[in-house]
Amino acid sequence: MQLYDLELSGNCYKVRLFAALAQIPLDIVAVDFLAGAHKKPPLIDFNPWGEIPILVDGEVVLRDSQAILVYLAAKYAGESWLPRDAAGLGEVMQWLSTAANEVQNGPASARLVDKFGYALDKADTLKRAARILPLLDAHLARHPWLALARPTIADCAVFPYVALAPEGGVSLADYPHIRQWIARVKALPNFLAMPGV
Amino acid sequence: MQLYDLELSGNCYKVRLFAALAQIPLDIVAVDFLAGAHKKPPLIDFNPWGEIPILVDGEVVLRDSQAILVYLAAKYAGESWLPRDAAGLGEVMQWLSTAANEVQNGPASARLVDKFGYALDKADTLKRAARILPLLDAHLARHPWLALARPTIADCAVFPYVALAPEGGVSLADYPHIRQWIARVKALPNFLAMPGV
Repeated sequence: MQLYDLELSGNCYKVRLFAALAQIPLDIVAVDFLAGAHKKPPLIDFNPWGEIPILVDGEVVLRDSQAILVYLAAKYAGESWLPRDAAGLGEVMQWLSTAANEVQNGPASARLVDKFGYALDKADTLKRAARILPLLDAHLARHPWLALARPTIADCAVFPYVALAPEGGVSLADYPHIRQWIARVKALPNFLAMPGV
Repeated sequence: MQLYDLELSGNCYKVRLFAALAQIPLDIVAVDFLAGAHKKPPLIDFNPWGEIPILVDGEVVLRDSQAILVYLAAKYAGESWLPRDAAGLGEVMQWLSTAANEVQNGPASARLVDKFGYALDKADTLKRAARILPLLDAHLARHPWLALARPTIADCAVFPYVALAPEGGVSLADYPHIRQWIARVKALPNFLAMPGV
């Protein structure tokens, strides 16, 4: 099973982190991002969107980090990481949407501007970060983990770009419950770091 | 089971549409959006994010239209709408992320500007729409439905704001496969329309 990966990508790190925590073996294939390998064959055929991560597991080819988390959890991990009952699935799913939208377009995009020079509207990314982080902090003031009172793929999906927020000029100083949650994630057995986390 | 709803919201329509197609009974509770009812108790306690739709099913309270689709399908519909196997779940999940991010921040946000006067960057919404719609059209040139060669909640999540794109000044004239897919969705048994679709 291959993960087409970029070490500095938080989206790729979501997958590496979960695979480490759940002890799922992955063949990490480093993508030559600067050369645009993700925009050319064979990767553009795996993912016409020209993005990574991409997971290839035999016949299964998946784009989108959240979808890859769901697949890996459903196929290779216990229900602890992704419940199969409707209420549990729905609760986890809420946070996968948060990762795909609010976190991606907030702190993750602020980092794309500061660290990689992307031509995005920095003010807009900061405004979005300033909306989502207090909501996240308030949630984590009342819950140790994002969903279900235990670590799930919800945490793996949201953690990377929140922990990397300072690299986009977004301070976590005002969010003590987020910082405590980051410490809890880092203390999980088999936790895997990345540069900046 | 209550759906806190706004008729003109495409996010609420995702849920109404799927419930109609899968014949799941919902009590539709109209939210006084102009009066900001979604920003005040009791709704703000159900969803601290101050957004609708919200689904309340006994003890289960869910925000986020994608999460609500997953919950309803897992609890009340057959595997036809949401498979339980890893590969099928992952394939559907890709499109739920697309609905939450690219569609929401592209055509859906363009419509928020034009139809409701939201202070968003219209040019940015159009740029995002111009990226996602060709990808969607190319996918639908080769597949009748977004995932799994049959209608699933993936279609219910993406359909509303794509079909409503012209209300945000985003023409579908150049996307024949999207238009054919819209026609296929509209021809499904028990299809439910909304204003503008």
